[in-house]
Amino acid sequence: MQEAREDPPLDEGLGPEELAEAWPLLDPSARLEGFRMLERHVAEDFFFTLSSRDQAELLIDLPPLERRSWLRQLAPDDVVDLLQEAPEEERDPLLSLLDAPTTREVQALLAYAEDKAGGLMSTRYARVRPDMTVDEAITYLRRQAREDIETIYYTYVLDAGQKILGVVSFRELFAARGTQPVREIMRTDVVTVPEDMDQESVSRLFARHDLAAMPVVDLGGRMKGIVTVDDIVDVVEEEATEDIQKIGGTEALDAPYLEIGMFEMIRKRAVWLAALFLGEMLTSTAMKAYEAEIAQAVVLALFLPLIISSGGNSGSQATTLVIRAMALGEVRLRDWWRVVRREILAGLGLGLILAAIGLLRILVWGRFFGTYGEHYVLIATAVSASLIGVVLWGTLAGSMLPFVLRWLGFDPASASAPFVATLVDVSGIMIYFTVASRILHGTLL
Amino acid sequence: MQEAREDPPLDEGLGPEELAEAWPLLDPSARLEGFRMLERHVAEDFFFTLSSRDQAELLIDLPPLERRSWLRQLAPDDVVDLLQEAPEEERDPLLSLLDAPTTREVQALLAYAEDKAGGLMSTRYARVRPDMTVDEAITYLRRQAREDIETIYYTYVLDAGQKILGVVSFRELFAARGTQPVREIMRTDVVTVPEDMDQESVSRLFARHDLAAMPVVDLGGRMKGIVTVDDIVDVVEEEATEDIQKIGGTEALDAPYLEIGMFEMIRKRAVWLAALFLGEMLTSTAMKAYEAEIAQAVVLALFLPLIISSGGNSGSQATTLVIRAMALGEVRLRDWWRVVRREILAGLGLGLILAAIGLLRILVWGRFFGTYGEHYVLIATAVSASLIGVVLWGTLAGSMLPFVLRWLGFDPASASAPFVATLVDVSGIMIYFTVASRILHGTLL
Repeated sequence: MQEAREDPPLDEGLGPEELAEAWPLLDPSARLEGFRMLERHVAEDFFFTLSSRDQAELLIDLPPLERRSWLRQLAPDDVVDLLQEAPEEERDPLLSLLDAPTTREVQALLAYAEDKAGGLMSTRYARVRPDMTVDEAITYLRRQAREDIETIYYTYVLDAGQKILGVVSFRELFAARGTQPVREIMRTDVVTVPEDMDQESVSRLFARHDLAAMPVVDLGGRMKGIVTVDDIVDVVEEEATEDIQKIGGTEALDAPYLEIGMFEMIRKRAVWLAALFLGEMLTSTAMKAYEAEIAQAVVLALFLPLIISSGGNSGSQATTLVIRAMALGEVRLRDWWRVVRREILAGLGLGLILAAIGLLRILVWGRFFGTYGEHYVLIATAVSASLIGVVLWGTLAGSMLPFVLRWLGFDPASASAPFVATLVDVSGIMIYFTVASRILHGTLL
Repeated sequence: MQEAREDPPLDEGLGPEELAEAWPLLDPSARLEGFRMLERHVAEDFFFTLSSRDQAELLIDLPPLERRSWLRQLAPDDVVDLLQEAPEEERDPLLSLLDAPTTREVQALLAYAEDKAGGLMSTRYARVRPDMTVDEAITYLRRQAREDIETIYYTYVLDAGQKILGVVSFRELFAARGTQPVREIMRTDVVTVPEDMDQESVSRLFARHDLAAMPVVDLGGRMKGIVTVDDIVDVVEEEATEDIQKIGGTEALDAPYLEIGMFEMIRKRAVWLAALFLGEMLTSTAMKAYEAEIAQAVVLALFLPLIISSGGNSGSQATTLVIRAMALGEVRLRDWWRVVRREILAGLGLGLILAAIGLLRILVWGRFFGTYGEHYVLIATAVSASLIGVVLWGTLAGSMLPFVLRWLGFDPASASAPFVATLVDVSGIMIYFTVASRILHGTLL
């Protein structure tokens, strides 16, 4: 048991747990050294738990003669992941280390994009013929299990043309009478995944059907491989990371935070930040239009950051909720009108709450400290009325932007909080000064 | 095959796929009606794919006499999930529908918090004794498979006191010689999960060890159940949703967007929005301190939204990247100094880029359109210098806030983009006016 394991003496190097712990902090040569200190069978287990990225880096740091025995440990789909993480020029040399049938399998898998069902699948699955008896099938599978099949949880029943006739779970096979033919116990309502389905849809399908594995088929309905639920955990995590990073207003990093190069990190952040900055420049253009009003009533400028940030914050909330609901499949394009109705109500409610707080604050300070001059009641009214307008508008704009982006074919997660805030800032300025001009006309303005 | 399934005639109701599709849009009575139109075995499959929340709602809408046969279909851990989604007053009546041993199992599971390993686990796992032969074990498991065990992917080897001696994967058992004792082929380095481990840590453990299931043990090392990877998919998705909603500046909704009540939704959003609004009020206090400067040089106010939003945007980026890296276990508390060093560099780089763009813009407009009066070069200098300061500060503050929150024992994801933007707005105003006063002293001010 792991808990009972004793720490190895230090001169023998780190144990696998310590090495895994220290891994992100080690430079390549220290990683290599730590790895080579492990006993062979421990090192093998350790190697399997590394990410494909780390596996690729480690392998390339090894002397060429040692690489083969490590690469050949991996299943074809894991080799593919590793190759996709390796530098372009290393791929062919690595591929040449495999045996001929595996090379063919890997090349076939490499043809699929990494984020499609075909790129996720394993080609090593358990299969039987429909006319086998349960006992024959179990014996046959026992032989297949000696080879490296990905999962024996489901066994697929295929015809001679590789078409799927049915599926039988291992538990069902096990529980059945030994003399029954497989055909009689298999289920025929098999949920299949087209090979070019993108990984986010595949993970939705898993969530919906609650299966441990699903077969991947080509256009002709021929079985090509299986996707297993443990690959889906990685997909879900990866997609969530991408969405979170986009919502935060950067490009997706596509690499662990501490490992990505500084130049690359600045580039990914600068692109969005500069775009937002250019958009935000419109605020100074908008402000320019109200320069005379500000000069006449400087007190108006005091509430400007408060008002535009309230619009930005309510927009961030709305856009984030809608983006996530879309990613989870809870909200679809055609639900836009239901979302509009909900967000108008929510925006009004939230606007009224903020307006009430703002009104109270300005009235109290104006009345007791004389902070805002003699017209503080009018100022309080102008600020509150603007808040309702700005929050309502921010909420609506924030909730609709993901729909517009998806409708245009972009990723709705690009409707990041900063993007919405920028959009709402310019209109916030316009709403504020328009409302203030009306209310303060003849007094302050 | 699903693709080949024909649509049922309309007067027979919706098929299971159409019903699943329409589900979120239907009201309770339409759901019930659609459900009862399904053939019994189709309805069973359909029932299993529903979320625990939907299962609970559907069950409560059924006449009391029909409830039992549905509830008894579920495994104990699924019953627990269903009960946790049911209203308080319905739980005991539902529990009384189960048979006595299942009631005991469910009550034991209910004692665990929903988000702990014990709350995720299933108590129905495959177990054998160490001195059985492989053939005996397979026969024995074949009998167990007829009962409802959660997964047969791993078989646990237990001693008489329920302590785990080892684990053998089904594939290994299958591939082994029939006469070997299980003891000889089992692995003894079993990774175990303590029953009170929180679900986020459990999902990290799954990611690290790449296993399909893990045994849950109590303090005495006795096996209590297993957690399977398909439960982890839901955990990962749930945790990501919570983080994303917090990053967007709301409390986690804990319910699908379209299903949560309007009052509840406004409440969850209003709490944060009002808190941010109160914080943002400090901006008008800060502005008040510079009222004289604004009155003297209104042109300064024009760039205020641009500058504070740049600070907010760079802060959002930094905080989001750090929150996600923490959630993925890539960055730990003790890495704070490495993050500081990276973010100082990134902040300086990003600040310089925005400053250059801002400088260029003001110089060009000032030179060719005379937009900003005679002192446009000084204004351009003041804006650019402030941008470097504000972006650097926003980046640093945004990246450190998640560390401070985690260190204080809060969820780092509460360092939402709007929270950071609010924090940075006030300091942005101070940085801008301080820098501008220095640079413009004797000319505009």
